[in-house]
Amino acid sequence: MSRARALDDADKLASHRAEFVEAPGVVAYLDGNSLGRPLTTSVARVETFLREEWGGRLIRGWDEGWLDLPLSIGDELGRVALGAAPGQVAIGDSTTVLIYKLVRAAVDARPGRTEIVIDRDNFPTDRYVVEGIAADRGLTIRWADTDAAAGVTPELVADLVGPQTALTLFSSVAYRSGFLADVEAITAVSHAAGALALWDLCHSVGVVPTELDAWGVDLAVGCGYKYLNGGPGAPAFLYVRRELQSEVRQPIQGWLGSATPFEMGQGYTAAAGIRGTLSGTPPIVGMLAMQDMIALLSSVGLEAVRAKSIALTGFAIELCDALLPTAALSSPREATRRGSHVTLDHPRFAEIMPLLWERGVIPDFRRPDGIRLGLSPLSTSFAEVEVGVRAIADVLGER
Amino acid sequence: MSRARALDDADKLASHRAEFVEAPGVVAYLDGNSLGRPLTTSVARVETFLREEWGGRLIRGWDEGWLDLPLSIGDELGRVALGAAPGQVAIGDSTTVLIYKLVRAAVDARPGRTEIVIDRDNFPTDRYVVEGIAADRGLTIRWADTDAAAGVTPELVADLVGPQTALTLFSSVAYRSGFLADVEAITAVSHAAGALALWDLCHSVGVVPTELDAWGVDLAVGCGYKYLNGGPGAPAFLYVRRELQSEVRQPIQGWLGSATPFEMGQGYTAAAGIRGTLSGTPPIVGMLAMQDMIALLSSVGLEAVRAKSIALTGFAIELCDALLPTAALSSPREATRRGSHVTLDHPRFAEIMPLLWERGVIPDFRRPDGIRLGLSPLSTSFAEVEVGVRAIADVLGER
Repeated sequence: MSRARALDDADKLASHRAEFVEAPGVVAYLDGNSLGRPLTTSVARVETFLREEWGGRLIRGWDEGWLDLPLSIGDELGRVALGAAPGQVAIGDSTTVLIYKLVRAAVDARPGRTEIVIDRDNFPTDRYVVEGIAADRGLTIRWADTDAAAGVTPELVADLVGPQTALTLFSSVAYRSGFLADVEAITAVSHAAGALALWDLCHSVGVVPTELDAWGVDLAVGCGYKYLNGGPGAPAFLYVRRELQSEVRQPIQGWLGSATPFEMGQGYTAAAGIRGTLSGTPPIVGMLAMQDMIALLSSVGLEAVRAKSIALTGFAIELCDALLPTAALSSPREATRRGSHVTLDHPRFAEIMPLLWERGVIPDFRRPDGIRLGLSPLSTSFAEVEVGVRAIADVLGER
Repeated sequence: MSRARALDDADKLASHRAEFVEAPGVVAYLDGNSLGRPLTTSVARVETFLREEWGGRLIRGWDEGWLDLPLSIGDELGRVALGAAPGQVAIGDSTTVLIYKLVRAAVDARPGRTEIVIDRDNFPTDRYVVEGIAADRGLTIRWADTDAAAGVTPELVADLVGPQTALTLFSSVAYRSGFLADVEAITAVSHAAGALALWDLCHSVGVVPTELDAWGVDLAVGCGYKYLNGGPGAPAFLYVRRELQSEVRQPIQGWLGSATPFEMGQGYTAAAGIRGTLSGTPPIVGMLAMQDMIALLSSVGLEAVRAKSIALTGFAIELCDALLPTAALSSPREATRRGSHVTLDHPRFAEIMPLLWERGVIPDFRRPDGIRLGLSPLSTSFAEVEVGVRAIADVLGER
């Protein structure tokens, strides 16, 4: 394991690994892209919040800062990880609910246009939400049949968009292959057709530098529990470009998205700006751990995180080439087109998953036969990657 | 304070008050209907969950029980507080999002019917959601103009429903007046017109015994952070009567409401039963405190909780009559028509709220000039009610 040790020794981010809660018996956690690990500070923070803020301040907490958290954490996330100026990001709901809000808002903002473009390899919830809205509103889905190895490309999108396209919806990093799309170029293709571009950032936020403002992205959503380490079922986030905020109206009109929530008045008027995207009472406890991770990302810098991510995934591929010659790499070899996970396919991967868990090696599994190594730069070591890949090779070899 | 002390001494539930986290400096917390207090066990439980389950089990936690929590806690809530047989209640999202799902589902399940009946005094989010859906789908809202003192009555509803009514939506306990509606009778009136009945249980769940199955209720939603003590922004819950589950389809099609979420396949098929109401990844951390409170309610029994609630609100009214003769009681005097909060109106209440907070007396305030005393039977003492009402009288008198 000298190569991994050398990489860890040279890794300037290595010390951050100790900031995460230890998992007894786990020798390689390679699923940070499904559920990031908790920071030790988050455990203490949440405990203190429950006792002192919820328990001690009680209802006064809403006046003393809780009500601002969806937008203040959103602004921080925008600054640290999204390239978004303040007032364009809000935390809340689930990714699914936020995709629903923004797809509905987008198609309503492009009346007369009858098509939504999305890829077959997009995450199921994205596709399912779009299918439901398309059926409800009589819209047509134009499916991009991506080559999993190539992912979503500007050329593919250009072939599908046209004067009938209301919206395109793709993932910046494909959940299965890890393919990293050219968000800026594809957004430009969507705009050239007069369509809005909605991006699912679930598998890129917190690990791939993103410049939503500079790239001209219209709308985005993402997940709080992967590389933002918010905990199981943590709230999601959305981005609505400032210029679109008066035009794009989400359909779930709730009191906390209204202009005057505590007036309790007759008739809904949406709050100006990003606050109008809120619906119900914000899920405060679920935001706290995410806020801690955003602060850590801010201190480390996303460029350094990305550099380690590339090194980790590159090292994983190198090891897989050497140790798992019978598995097929389903992720891009080119670092600039790769997110922070690496997927391998092998017909026997499904059967070995329980054996890996027994050894404390925890990758992700994706049907039908993919093992996904999700490498979270601040909590994953190179040694852990090597332990994991060697374990997969050993278990495959033993059977 | 002898009368309050005597009531506390005779109160068989009094000892439970010590199970809640202490709030330093708070001498009367009278806002349990806005934000219930945390159980001490919940603080420890959440801390342990973050460290051992999220931090220790990591992604394996989903397979080891987390995925079941929305329905297993839902079943427990149904048994303990809703009179609902298993398989009809699910935890998730916010109240607003769940109202949206069920109003949409209901109007889609009654095609050709063009009207929704709701009252002007209903909570803003209920009204706002209905306004949005009505505008989107070309439906008409028939507004019930409730007399705040009388609340929603079967007679009032009977005057408004008809062959065009798709849905009625009322609150079991009115958020402002505390009026307790006759859910069973009003549901029957809705059914007689062929409409579905959706009930907002936010201000009754956990404090007013409810028999959704026996009363024939079709659909219900409610809040996790009031008398269920789930914490700020805790997830909400919904109920869909078993017989309607194949007919009523919610519009936010997400992966965790699909029949085979981990197949990641093409084409959404809703999961059978109540699971089909889920959308995104369940907010696990937010459910834990609620689960603790449901367990406590189960051990105490909702009838005993209701008996103390009636005694507390009755005592509050008695004190207000004696000490606040210039304030107007805006809640029913009749115990059987009263939830667990008491609202008083006085033109100077807005100005005295900061002075009450300074004294550690924390009631709720509702525009334009209402003080709402929310009395949570397991965490509120009679002495606390007396301290609170005397403080209001003192502060009013001093100014």
